Amino acid sequence: MAAELTAHELIAQHRPTLDQALEAVRTRAYWSPHPEHPKAYGEHGSLDAAAGKAAFDALLGTRLDLGQPGTDGWVDGEVSPYGIELGVSYPHADIEVLLPAMRAGQRAWRDAGPKARATVCLEILKRINDRTHEFAHAVMHTSGQAFMMAFQAGGPHAQDRGLEAVAYAYAEQVRVPGTAEWTKPQGKRDPLALTKRFTAVPRGIGLVIGCNTFPTWNGYPGLFASLATGNAVLVKPHPRAVLPLALTVQVARQVLTEAGFDANLVALAAERPGEGIAKTLAVRPEIRIIDYTGSTAFGEWLEANARQAQVYTEKAGVNTVIVESTGDYKGMLSNLAFSLSLYSGQMCTTPQNLLVPRDGIRTDQGPKSYDEVVADLAQAVDGLLGDDARANALLGAIVNPDVKARLEAAPGLGEVALASREVGNPEFPAAVVRTPVIVKLDGAKPDDEAACMSECFGPVSFAVAVDSAADAVRLLRRSVREKGAMTVGAYTTDEEVEREIEEACLEEAAQLSLNLTGGVYVNQTAAFSDFHGSGGNPAANSALTDGAFVANRFRTVEVRREA
Amino acid sequence: MAAELTAHELIAQHRPTLDQALEAVRTRAYWSPHPEHPKAYGEHGSLDAAAGKAAFDALLGTRLDLGQPGTDGWVDGEVSPYGIELGVSYPHADIEVLLPAMRAGQRAWRDAGPKARATVCLEILKRINDRTHEFAHAVMHTSGQAFMMAFQAGGPHAQDRGLEAVAYAYAEQVRVPGTAEWTKPQGKRDPLALTKRFTAVPRGIGLVIGCNTFPTWNGYPGLFASLATGNAVLVKPHPRAVLPLALTVQVARQVLTEAGFDANLVALAAERPGEGIAKTLAVRPEIRIIDYTGSTAFGEWLEANARQAQVYTEKAGVNTVIVESTGDYKGMLSNLAFSLSLYSGQMCTTPQNLLVPRDGIRTDQGPKSYDEVVADLAQAVDGLLGDDARANALLGAIVNPDVKARLEAAPGLGEVALASREVGNPEFPAAVVRTPVIVKLDGAKPDDEAACMSECFGPVSFAVAVDSAADAVRLLRRSVREKGAMTVGAYTTDEEVEREIEEACLEEAAQLSLNLTGGVYVNQTAAFSDFHGSGGNPAANSALTDGAFVANRFRTVEVRREA
Repeated sequence: MAAELTAHELIAQHRPTLDQALEAVRTRAYWSPHPEHPKAYGEHGSLDAAAGKAAFDALLGTRLDLGQPGTDGWVDGEVSPYGIELGVSYPHADIEVLLPAMRAGQRAWRDAGPKARATVCLEILKRINDRTHEFAHAVMHTSGQAFMMAFQAGGPHAQDRGLEAVAYAYAEQVRVPGTAEWTKPQGKRDPLALTKRFTAVPRGIGLVIGCNTFPTWNGYPGLFASLATGNAVLVKPHPRAVLPLALTVQVARQVLTEAGFDANLVALAAERPGEGIAKTLAVRPEIRIIDYTGSTAFGEWLEANARQAQVYTEKAGVNTVIVESTGDYKGMLSNLAFSLSLYSGQMCTTPQNLLVPRDGIRTDQGPKSYDEVVADLAQAVDGLLGDDARANALLGAIVNPDVKARLEAAPGLGEVALASREVGNPEFPAAVVRTPVIVKLDGAKPDDEAACMSECFGPVSFAVAVDSAADAVRLLRRSVREKGAMTVGAYTTDEEVEREIEEACLEEAAQLSLNLTGGVYVNQTAAFSDFHGSGGNPAANSALTDGAFVANRFRTVEVRREA
Repeated sequence: MAAELTAHELIAQHRPTLDQALEAVRTRAYWSPHPEHPKAYGEHGSLDAAAGKAAFDALLGTRLDLGQPGTDGWVDGEVSPYGIELGVSYPHADIEVLLPAMRAGQRAWRDAGPKARATVCLEILKRINDRTHEFAHAVMHTSGQAFMMAFQAGGPHAQDRGLEAVAYAYAEQVRVPGTAEWTKPQGKRDPLALTKRFTAVPRGIGLVIGCNTFPTWNGYPGLFASLATGNAVLVKPHPRAVLPLALTVQVARQVLTEAGFDANLVALAAERPGEGIAKTLAVRPEIRIIDYTGSTAFGEWLEANARQAQVYTEKAGVNTVIVESTGDYKGMLSNLAFSLSLYSGQMCTTPQNLLVPRDGIRTDQGPKSYDEVVADLAQAVDGLLGDDARANALLGAIVNPDVKARLEAAPGLGEVALASREVGNPEFPAAVVRTPVIVKLDGAKPDDEAACMSECFGPVSFAVAVDSAADAVRLLRRSVREKGAMTVGAYTTDEEVEREIEEACLEEAAQLSLNLTGGVYVNQTAAFSDFHGSGGNPAANSALTDGAFVANRFRTVEVRREA
């Protein structure tokens, strides 16, 4: 697509997709325009597996020049959790030059209106989708996700979340008409009559602060929500996960240029080691929106200090699964084993605390004691990960030394029900691949309760013995209220227990998955249908994606005059 | 309506009104279900003028017992700006008792769902509307508004703003369906299938902090937005304007009870003199939403300190009208004169700075010098207020000694173009009634620029001489950006100047009225059509009413299970 794009062409091309996305968020039925299967790519201009791999390989050791104003040097240093030094260098920005340059194109972007902005965003997503195989390697070699997960979560699922944000942003802006005629009767006198024009105006520059584990999946919602509502967007990637977002910025700049807009509406802010640029950027007056995924400490710092901005944060949480009873013991065990293993538990949605009554549970295979449940779960994880090739494909690599340190410290917290083991990766011998550890804790012991009430991000889960279902619900409520939770799971065949758990989740605003025994897991959410987080407990102050996530990224300005 | 209401009856009764409100906010055409004319009341159960006055008189000197838990005493002390001691006493609450009691009914209120909540809110508004004449006196004798304004702004217009908030709240909650079936194809395998249930859950207790000048108009949007989204609402009225909100709380408690809900979902927090209860309540963990109208200082304190809550503030601002040229000089003068006079300029939307080029302006009556424009405006105000009866009907009374002090200090700021005069009020001799003062300032003088850049709430306007239209736009931009503005007005026949002013308003997020010369005034906004504030400049962090005003008052909790 070398020729310049016209807004009209883009709109015609992408309108059906936008309409389907709008319909999907309304019905919340399954929908995605982005194929999940690697083999679906290779036609209609998209890269197939070989071409994607080649494109990724060609990036290694190169300078990714984005043509940004204020570039005062180059930064590099990414090392894949699989051991490869990426060697890609990125522009380092003088923000005194870059930030003003980003504002230059905002008027034209604002005046283009919601429809043109949505379609430009959809074109960006389309180009990214075409390069899903290339992005998959970029995500894999920054996050440590196994290839298939990097492909799906970093590719189509991230693109879905971006598109969902565009749809919400578009819908929110067009709730108010562009113009209105207002005629107020005055009895026998002439009516009062005004003509009103309404314009969605941006807040300023949105700052996206990316994370290490899901650079695209967690980065796209804020990026596209801010861009689609008329703001410029500055992307500050995690220093260990620059490439996927740098490629994203590159695509966005290309599409903006081709569509006749200023490329500087989207820019990258890569940083030198230890520069801590996020803190500097976050309080700049030009930055009026911040999207952040990461530690609770920095998220809370942003909420308290970036007062000039709308701040959307996803922080840490303590996710709980209550195991009270089940009608499908085997299905429950294999479902849980998968959830604990996927990406070595390095998801913000991975269960940490498995609450099991100390007197055991009822199952379709008869009563099971607490010890039996824990042992059977350990065995299920072992079985799932017994084969090294399969283990590698599920676990991926440990993303950074902090996670490894927590994993290694976990046995000190209690009795180990399942020890972690090293898994060799023949293709990438330097990768740190570990199976999850399960540690037994007793909810009645203060030290154990303290251990399970603090987030232990990574492949560490606690099998917590509790007194009863009611005790489990009490601990669930407390952990959601005090620590937050991105997900809650529960297994129960008892209607009353189910009701109590649901009520706890409704009151504490936590998203609940009940009795999952098949191919859907508590740690996965689907765009257009599931909410990621609730925005109502300490784990996140916003949900992906709802009206509140987009409605305050722009304002509506009214100009009225007599008709 | 003595019999208990059923949700079904309420829904059938109010659904058409809700549907019309939803349509009105979509089209932004004129609409209101609440008649503006006093004579429209007296049938279908509503109080006519005499009955309303009698009902108000009967309240004087009585104890308004709301039956609230935790009542530990009674507070009174309201003195009307018209001189009457109201003598009404209100419950004082022990918040350690009242706040927990307010949570008791929340589960049932949540489970009732958006439609039932909306219709209960509409029934509350209907009952208030029936008592508009009574409320008019309550608003008049707390705010100092003249009767007709208290009737309209405190009655139907406030009710409109409440209904608008209910419509937005309802629409936002039902954007997500109650349930969804999600079926994801898996090639040749069985599809993945989930049943999902979505519930709008409240954040907790909403706190409404009322203001002195517009207790109902500024109080209703937050009250009804929070209540309709499932929250309990605690109303903390301004100590000088308790009665209108106390009556509102009383009606709400009655309707909630009759509809089978807990009366304590809405409660009053009246305070003892100097108690400063707003500061205590604002940081209570139970308070999760705050709606505030008042001083910038306390608004900023709330934004910085009430971190556990969503905080919606309307603070002070500096409103500007640019007078560059006009095709209807006489219409402009009379329109401006009315805007400056209405309620003695005690509206957050009243123009403060009139920017006029020092070289004069072009008009349909030939060129007019700066001095002529100011003198003609002074004369227009004089003419409008020359008759004492008419002056009283327009001006109302000065609401409190602070406003009077500012008015009296204004002549010290510059040359007086129009002196304020005392107007006698035969019916209420104690009322402090004053016509507005217009002071000449020179925008090129730093002291004068400083004077006009700080808010001088009350009947004080500055006729600021500026170098040019461009200079006016510069000053406009600066005042909106630094001080905020609820309204901007402009008179110009020059397309380029109009474009520059519009662009300034779009970039600084200010609501603009252009060339108003008839019966619509810059300081008035109509619910369902006009936005009050933009939420994008320092005068207010939210707009009445848009999606952002309601979307974060509730969260959506999803419960999913295998289908």
